[in-house]
Amino acid sequence: MQDTDITKRLAKWAVELKGGDIPDGVRREGVRTFVNWLGCAVGGARHETVDRALDAVTLFTGPARAQVLGRSERLDELHAALVNGISSHVLDYDDTHLKTIIHPAGPVASAILAVAESRAVSGEDFLTALILGVEVECRIGNSVYPDHYDRGWHITGTAGVFGAAAATGKLLGLDERQMTWAFGIAATQSSGFREMFGTMCKSFHPGRAAQNGAMAAFLAKANFDSSERAIEAPRGWANVLSTKQDYTEIVDGLGTNWEAGLNTYKPYACGIVIHPAIDGCQQLKETLGAKVSEIASVELRTHPLVLELTGKRAPRTGLEGKFSVFHAAATALLKGDGSPNAFTDEMVRDPEIVALRDKVKATTDASVHEDAVHIAVTLRSGERVQLHVPHAVGSLERPLSDDAISEKFARQSAPVIGEAATRELIGAGWGLASTADVATIAVASAARS
Amino acid sequence: MQDTDITKRLAKWAVELKGGDIPDGVRREGVRTFVNWLGCAVGGARHETVDRALDAVTLFTGPARAQVLGRSERLDELHAALVNGISSHVLDYDDTHLKTIIHPAGPVASAILAVAESRAVSGEDFLTALILGVEVECRIGNSVYPDHYDRGWHITGTAGVFGAAAATGKLLGLDERQMTWAFGIAATQSSGFREMFGTMCKSFHPGRAAQNGAMAAFLAKANFDSSERAIEAPRGWANVLSTKQDYTEIVDGLGTNWEAGLNTYKPYACGIVIHPAIDGCQQLKETLGAKVSEIASVELRTHPLVLELTGKRAPRTGLEGKFSVFHAAATALLKGDGSPNAFTDEMVRDPEIVALRDKVKATTDASVHEDAVHIAVTLRSGERVQLHVPHAVGSLERPLSDDAISEKFARQSAPVIGEAATRELIGAGWGLASTADVATIAVASAARS
Repeated sequence: MQDTDITKRLAKWAVELKGGDIPDGVRREGVRTFVNWLGCAVGGARHETVDRALDAVTLFTGPARAQVLGRSERLDELHAALVNGISSHVLDYDDTHLKTIIHPAGPVASAILAVAESRAVSGEDFLTALILGVEVECRIGNSVYPDHYDRGWHITGTAGVFGAAAATGKLLGLDERQMTWAFGIAATQSSGFREMFGTMCKSFHPGRAAQNGAMAAFLAKANFDSSERAIEAPRGWANVLSTKQDYTEIVDGLGTNWEAGLNTYKPYACGIVIHPAIDGCQQLKETLGAKVSEIASVELRTHPLVLELTGKRAPRTGLEGKFSVFHAAATALLKGDGSPNAFTDEMVRDPEIVALRDKVKATTDASVHEDAVHIAVTLRSGERVQLHVPHAVGSLERPLSDDAISEKFARQSAPVIGEAATRELIGAGWGLASTADVATIAVASAARS
Repeated sequence: MQDTDITKRLAKWAVELKGGDIPDGVRREGVRTFVNWLGCAVGGARHETVDRALDAVTLFTGPARAQVLGRSERLDELHAALVNGISSHVLDYDDTHLKTIIHPAGPVASAILAVAESRAVSGEDFLTALILGVEVECRIGNSVYPDHYDRGWHITGTAGVFGAAAATGKLLGLDERQMTWAFGIAATQSSGFREMFGTMCKSFHPGRAAQNGAMAAFLAKANFDSSERAIEAPRGWANVLSTKQDYTEIVDGLGTNWEAGLNTYKPYACGIVIHPAIDGCQQLKETLGAKVSEIASVELRTHPLVLELTGKRAPRTGLEGKFSVFHAAATALLKGDGSPNAFTDEMVRDPEIVALRDKVKATTDASVHEDAVHIAVTLRSGERVQLHVPHAVGSLERPLSDDAISEKFARQSAPVIGEAATRELIGAGWGLASTADVATIAVASAARS
């Protein structure tokens, strides 16, 4: 295969894609992606990370054409894309493309819902753009994963910007050359480090990817040009940001194999590699009952990425707690909780949780799959209870049902915009494909004063 | 030396720096940096790259508090920073920190002049922030150059964003912790590929660095946090974007050795590695006189970077011509020109220039310094004329004089805003240090309708 026309071939496919070309199952997964994202964006809307971002960007916002989901503010499209991208990811509760650990919806949906608001975009066209954007970012992610991620890039930001550009470009009706440029302008803004995990910048990454990808599409629409080989050139994106480049992942099976059909939704509000441990510890809480107070030690045998990504021994804040398998396991054993409530500043300082956290040990084993864990609990009596989780809830093998997605949505959203508005919004989300103008969904998320 | 507190130590120095700490010579170089940048920004203001960027961003601009230099439009500070960063670099005529090939002023001055406009900032305080920003970006650039650049990063973008953050943070009065966060938020947005050279995205890089660095400072001011080890962490900026990391370049001799005192100003409107060839070919034009029409071949012996960066054999556009040592040499021999007029679409298509361009050969020699060249011209008669340029005009050894900077300014600016306004603006630029409110300088650059 020629490596010289990857960017152009992807752009051509993106421009030519029609809604009818997308299989029903993938469209259905696109709706689930949207509903899960919308609930997360509303659920995260009052986080202080969002407050602080709004404090800064409100100084610069243009015409108030786009809703900050779950709040009362309206901003220009690009700033709304930024803030909604932040709020949808800030609780680490959003969606995951498991092959790459990309959280696909944040960069894409945040960009296009904001852009769509003043353009009378139908739910059908929105869904096509959303699926396109997810497909593009996950394929580009596949081409460089895991080397790119191992180097330290937060792939949701670095690949997400392409998804936002593709999806926004689709709504704007870019031609092939413009779409190629949009990918180039996106590529040359690609950024975001894993070093930022546990800080406010983690959720800034999908927000900025949404904003920058959308800007790339608007610049391309104005015929602002770029390299037409931005992905595959010798000094293009894949070579500069990764040691692995497999371009077949980007262009083979386009329109046949759908990465967008492989999205998953988190049952727990933290780094996905901890999910098996939480799942298992919740089960052990039921098994142990009152004996939870007699635990002498907890041993986790996990995939190596678990300690690499979530090995914080002594988290100081709720955000850091999301990257501590020790905190997560202790909280699941004591409280049965993996929701956003398990990852507050208060919870990581709770003496009972801290005491149990210090009894949790973790060893890594490359033969353990990323969505699996082996857990052994030893009680002070010497009694030993073991559990193997082969696939965590929320994985492709045990996907969240539509009802579970709705329940997750309601639990997050009701405290922010109230139960009635939440019920209405959940219905609007599931009805995406038949919506005449998606602006109505954005507006329905607004906090009532 | 501990590698664990580089970001914090740099932030502490940035916060504590006072104008009086900066030696007179460095302050003088800061004024020269400012005047050269201002002329370039006005000179590039009507380029179609700027037109197209404005077409896109005008849709989203916030309150019109900052001047687009050399034009009539006003935008919010962040968008003005973007557009002024583009216009100041679009002609490839701006300044150069020769150790790193960073073009320092674009990211820094574009950010802080826009931010200063609505904040009644004195010329003295502005100059301190400008020098601080240049110092920060060049030191960070030194720590990873050349490996970082060799990998394909456009260092003016990737390092420039730190300079913009530092300088804007200084104007905003960030405390140490906030300045540390600003560096982190800047780091995690660091981007821009050399692959974009010859396209509109090249000048987009300093523009976006200005905008993103300024945004980093505003976010930090709002207590949006980040890693406090963003530069030196195992998966921080220097490790993720470079194979070389020499942190002594960042923190040794702070306040004693000034990179900001080593800035240089381009006499020619193109990639700086071509400058020796243009300088030499202009001299040969004088030597050869009418015999220029009898040239059979031109041989250039250059530093290897010349062909790597500017080896385009057949440029198709003026922007591409800036990256063709062949076009530049031919144009200097035939027209004696290295100004922006030498790099228009018309000039790269001129049949006489194309014919001579095809007679130019270049070989590389690692023993030839980057600011030197050996040229041999062979005429059809067999006569051979040779020339060695040990240091191109505009280098540290042969710096542009203040008068030459003023002349360069006037030649660029007069066609854009007229001669009277240009004279006034040049005077205002040189008077920076005694200006009560730098907003007056920005406003003085505005195009009269």
